[in-house]
Amino acid sequence: MTGTLPLLTRRGDTLRYDRERSLVTVLDRRRYPAETVWVDCPNVEAVARSIETMVIQGGPPLAYVAGYGLALALDQAAGLPRDLQRLALSGATERLRRTRPTADDLHTLLAAAQRRASAALDADGSPGDAVYTFVASEVLRGDRSAERCGVRAAELLTDGDTVLTVCYPGAAFNWMLYTAVVKDGKQVAVMPTETRPYGQGIRLTASQAHEIGAPVTVITDNMPGFCFSRGMITVYVTAADRIALDGSIANKVGTYQNAVLARRHGVPFYVLGYDGPDQNTPTGADIPIEERNGDEVLMMNGVRMAPEGVRGYYPAFDVTPPDLISSIVTDRGIYRPAMITRYHDEVSDVPLDVIPLLGTTI
Amino acid sequence: MTGTLPLLTRRGDTLRYDRERSLVTVLDRRRYPAETVWVDCPNVEAVARSIETMVIQGGPPLAYVAGYGLALALDQAAGLPRDLQRLALSGATERLRRTRPTADDLHTLLAAAQRRASAALDADGSPGDAVYTFVASEVLRGDRSAERCGVRAAELLTDGDTVLTVCYPGAAFNWMLYTAVVKDGKQVAVMPTETRPYGQGIRLTASQAHEIGAPVTVITDNMPGFCFSRGMITVYVTAADRIALDGSIANKVGTYQNAVLARRHGVPFYVLGYDGPDQNTPTGADIPIEERNGDEVLMMNGVRMAPEGVRGYYPAFDVTPPDLISSIVTDRGIYRPAMITRYHDEVSDVPLDVIPLLGTTI
Repeated sequence: MTGTLPLLTRRGDTLRYDRERSLVTVLDRRRYPAETVWVDCPNVEAVARSIETMVIQGGPPLAYVAGYGLALALDQAAGLPRDLQRLALSGATERLRRTRPTADDLHTLLAAAQRRASAALDADGSPGDAVYTFVASEVLRGDRSAERCGVRAAELLTDGDTVLTVCYPGAAFNWMLYTAVVKDGKQVAVMPTETRPYGQGIRLTASQAHEIGAPVTVITDNMPGFCFSRGMITVYVTAADRIALDGSIANKVGTYQNAVLARRHGVPFYVLGYDGPDQNTPTGADIPIEERNGDEVLMMNGVRMAPEGVRGYYPAFDVTPPDLISSIVTDRGIYRPAMITRYHDEVSDVPLDVIPLLGTTI
Repeated sequence: MTGTLPLLTRRGDTLRYDRERSLVTVLDRRRYPAETVWVDCPNVEAVARSIETMVIQGGPPLAYVAGYGLALALDQAAGLPRDLQRLALSGATERLRRTRPTADDLHTLLAAAQRRASAALDADGSPGDAVYTFVASEVLRGDRSAERCGVRAAELLTDGDTVLTVCYPGAAFNWMLYTAVVKDGKQVAVMPTETRPYGQGIRLTASQAHEIGAPVTVITDNMPGFCFSRGMITVYVTAADRIALDGSIANKVGTYQNAVLARRHGVPFYVLGYDGPDQNTPTGADIPIEERNGDEVLMMNGVRMAPEGVRGYYPAFDVTPPDLISSIVTDRGIYRPAMITRYHDEVSDVPLDVIPLLGTTI
């Protein structure tokens, strides 16, 4: 299992829309890697619930699932009169949009898919075809973007580094580690925080990094401060659920406090920025922060830990200001946060590896 | 259950040594408050294990249990020749000392108890009597110290405050809240961090604060940064497992990173210092940090969360330097950290409440 590209590296391996069976099928990221379980969603409501209940997590993957959910809804409405298809389009889009307010990929992809569906309806074409084709191409584009971003980020890692990260930073993190460890032969260790309450760090990041062959040491979310103070962390890397044009980023809650500690201890903080900032978000203050059900904080493995009468609070994300970020690494280049708007003027030039897709075992 | 002094306020209510039954009996703090379960320890090894496995937690309480464990060992050796009693004394002291390296109360109390036992042996007296009497008086002295410390700390709370804390800061925290909320009628809310991996915050602090009548909102250990950034925390209060003479403190891991955040956001950090600094610890760098079994980090409610091949790391404490601490509140007064050595020149003058002990339901 050492030195391989793990399952989560290519999004197409973990989610797909089977139009013949009329099912959107998604790897259950809440249970992976302990169990590799697939969830079949037979309609748009099931797709929306799979996003809300964290079956699928991570900015791009959940956007793709939402896009396929929209295609599913349109395919199922294909026999209806055109005006009812339009209603299905707006209803399904709205339902999917409401699932997660912070993730910008979701909102961007749904808007683009909705435009394509409308155009298809106007032209008497198939809106389901239009959305399916668009989303499938977005999955491929996203996978390429993740690879380019990760390959660039690998250049920033040095032999002997220990990388702190929170949550699971997605496919670009896998590419970064794979490139550094397997291709370039660097000794790079990974220290994921557990990432309560869902444990993406202890499950997803730990399993992916271990399969790539990096030594993995998990800590709980209260331990980065100590590890920084002892010089055990040399670089801090996370993804971003949204990048604002001022260079602020929103990411899994906990990202900000570790960024404050990284700055205090002189450790660089690199953000895996995939395909760049959101053109519609001027500043970090413009990013809405999703508050999930506080009861999720009170539970551990399905058991309520807190006494009765006590409430929980669960902001799912936080915002890190640009002055705490060393660089934002994208598929087009590496930017200081204050210069991230240049992203949209550049084009990609990183050569891609020719590595076959993993067997699609869905 | 509102407005009462909760169970953990008086240490004598949660631990005791029944000399007739030859048992040290301890409230299981890993299961409280979901279950109120008592663990009977029939010998010094069982007492040591109850400390190592976190049945009993918190600097003073675990020191008292260790002291009673030593008395138990000496009582059980009472029929032996005097030289064998001396061996029992040194063996039992050493076993108990090894349980937790960071807690200074444990080491101070064991050293004092050992001196008393030695003196009793030299004088042909009963070392078990000497240690039992000493520890029982220490429990009472500690309870008074906690009350004085907590009453002083209550003066620092303002109507409308929300108190962030980590772990369970012990009896002084209960007295602080009780005085502020019940006696002085201040509106004070409490925000405990969950405190992985043992969950002292979500279980112990949450239950104690709720019983006192303060609104309690639990967050996971990755959320203080966000809450600070939104102005949701107005004061940060923790205990200390050890206070050095330079004003550094060691406390449950996570204390330091929240102190960094409190400073960044202009929130005061008050340390409940109980009976003051450890005379034998000049600086924070002189405090040994206990590293517990890393597997404890990989478990959640008894289930291993991490994939095979991944290790955990579990530093149980961290050190916060004096420049991040606003004040250390003790039974003798409130000190700036740099002046904490003055503690030993002062005497206590805070009037004590006359509040009856809770029913001892052991």
